[in-house]
Amino acid sequence: MRDGALWISGGGPDSDIVVSSRVRLARNLVGMPFPNRSDASQLQQAREKVIQAAKSTPSIGPLEILLLEDMSEMDRRIAVEEHLTSPQHVSEPKGRALILNRDNSLCVMVNEEDHLRIQAILPGFQLEQALRLAWAADDAIEETLDYAFDSELGYLSACPTNVGTGMRASVMLHLPALVITNSVGQVLGAASKVGVATRGIYGEGTEAVGNLFQVSNQVTMGRAEEEIIAHLGAIVRQIIDSERSARRALLDDARPQIEDRLYRSFGILTNARMMPSEEALKLMSDVKLGADMGILPNVPDDLLTRLSVDTMPAHVQRALGRELSVWERDIARAGIIRERFEKANKASRGSNSAPDKEE
Amino acid sequence: MRDGALWISGGGPDSDIVVSSRVRLARNLVGMPFPNRSDASQLQQAREKVIQAAKSTPSIGPLEILLLEDMSEMDRRIAVEEHLTSPQHVSEPKGRALILNRDNSLCVMVNEEDHLRIQAILPGFQLEQALRLAWAADDAIEETLDYAFDSELGYLSACPTNVGTGMRASVMLHLPALVITNSVGQVLGAASKVGVATRGIYGEGTEAVGNLFQVSNQVTMGRAEEEIIAHLGAIVRQIIDSERSARRALLDDARPQIEDRLYRSFGILTNARMMPSEEALKLMSDVKLGADMGILPNVPDDLLTRLSVDTMPAHVQRALGRELSVWERDIARAGIIRERFEKANKASRGSNSAPDKEE
Repeated sequence: MRDGALWISGGGPDSDIVVSSRVRLARNLVGMPFPNRSDASQLQQAREKVIQAAKSTPSIGPLEILLLEDMSEMDRRIAVEEHLTSPQHVSEPKGRALILNRDNSLCVMVNEEDHLRIQAILPGFQLEQALRLAWAADDAIEETLDYAFDSELGYLSACPTNVGTGMRASVMLHLPALVITNSVGQVLGAASKVGVATRGIYGEGTEAVGNLFQVSNQVTMGRAEEEIIAHLGAIVRQIIDSERSARRALLDDARPQIEDRLYRSFGILTNARMMPSEEALKLMSDVKLGADMGILPNVPDDLLTRLSVDTMPAHVQRALGRELSVWERDIARAGIIRERFEKANKASRGSNSAPDKEE
Repeated sequence: MRDGALWISGGGPDSDIVVSSRVRLARNLVGMPFPNRSDASQLQQAREKVIQAAKSTPSIGPLEILLLEDMSEMDRRIAVEEHLTSPQHVSEPKGRALILNRDNSLCVMVNEEDHLRIQAILPGFQLEQALRLAWAADDAIEETLDYAFDSELGYLSACPTNVGTGMRASVMLHLPALVITNSVGQVLGAASKVGVATRGIYGEGTEAVGNLFQVSNQVTMGRAEEEIIAHLGAIVRQIIDSERSARRALLDDARPQIEDRLYRSFGILTNARMMPSEEALKLMSDVKLGADMGILPNVPDDLLTRLSVDTMPAHVQRALGRELSVWERDIARAGIIRERFEKANKASRGSNSAPDKEE
């Protein structure tokens, strides 16, 4: 967990719109009650089985095994902010574990809602690759572990909505132009009519802070995983096309206004001395849009995804090495943001001046 | 008028708070009706007399004589924006003139409300110096011209509020900290109880755009000019002290918030691509406060006063060499602002790196 999850480094296919792709498989141990029906010793027992299985998976590389109760409160929150686990999972750490591969592209939540939640997250639009990665872990673990499986229903899970493949695939999309042009509701509404669930990220209810939306499959039964992912991928492709059209329309119809908005956000983000979390996400969304549209120069690809995670509360507190009040956090967050942009700016000036020296 | 009025270059005593000091003398020609009671030929006649007198004033240097009807509409508006004349004066150009010394610290409006309005404007807190400059012009002109003067009343004028000395002295003050701390009403209210008139600048009614306030004498009769100016100056000194206290209080009680506000304004001002006039004045007020409080580095003393004039509508249009729509003006204004800050920034980097080269 030390280096941050792979998806945070940004990049990947269609990374101007797709932040990350995730595939999560729900699995349970045969002959054991689901975690929410288990007592402490049953949780311990299930966790021990999973850990033992994870220790003999050479095909997917060395894994880091973290018992949640041994992690600091801050590290657990860090893991949630990096989407390596869920708020629900860390809310009762006892008897739970988190298993990670070296670059944190793969994680197994032990005793979350199910005994195992095997999750692969990759940067950009890489659903098939994420499925293959999750499957590799699934296969490796299954070599020493028996899953609860019904020949009719498929994989059994604590929640009926996961029964069957047990697979939830999702894509995190940055859709600022659809929001600005007031068409995000229509585009995502159309997607939800063809078996795709959509929701805003980080926000309460339906509001998407930072113009981030998660799109995932609704159906987990009756169709093969590849088929579900191909369907989801096709719909995501349509949403990507809609967002690209909206961006072109903004440039064609309202270039001065959109440039003004994006540059103002850049100016505030790189100058403010106090920066609340929600405002940071809003401004970073604008700056990412500006960078991805070629309006704002010298903003590196990976800066904003990383920064959007590094400015979340637990990350800010880790950077400063202590618990902070909301007020102190807003000051620290503004400092972290400025520092990153200054560093990026220096680096780009450095690379610009390099050819001069060679002349 | 070519180079802009002297006061716009900024500087002068107490220039962190006092933008400019102005003394204006109302004078009329003996035996001639006031301009508002004059017909076209009487206006012409009065103007001719004043111009002839202005041509024989070697003691105050060469004067530029501009007939308002010969000036372009844009140049007349430029003169208004630089406070060299009044909107009223240029609204009916025929038969009117504007007489300027070389650095535009001295101007004579001919056939405004009175036959002559002799005005001296200097940067910073220089009321006595402005009075001496206005008097020098007054004396020089009086050598060849007879003023309407009553031994009881003093100088006669079209408006009874100017009778006596005919003098209106005023100071333009930048009072952002008093506005932020909600105490400007109380401080200026106290001043108005001791014979001083106060009003916001550039704004409608009582609202002061850009936190600029004009403070001037109410009484023009029964006291000598020096006495009136000493009284006004003492009250201005108290207002300056109040503003300085308010600035210290802001730093002591709310440094993070004030730094955040001023840096955000700087970020917006130097990044925006469209900048309406009122917003520009608001942001420039913050940036000037930041520079004067030592919070914002590398903002030259003279930048903001000059910029606040150079971003007014007629100045923006002159810079672009043509009439512009409001929309085009907002884009052009944003460009002028960025260019100035970039130039200032380069200059300061240049001067910072100069010592390195000498090593």
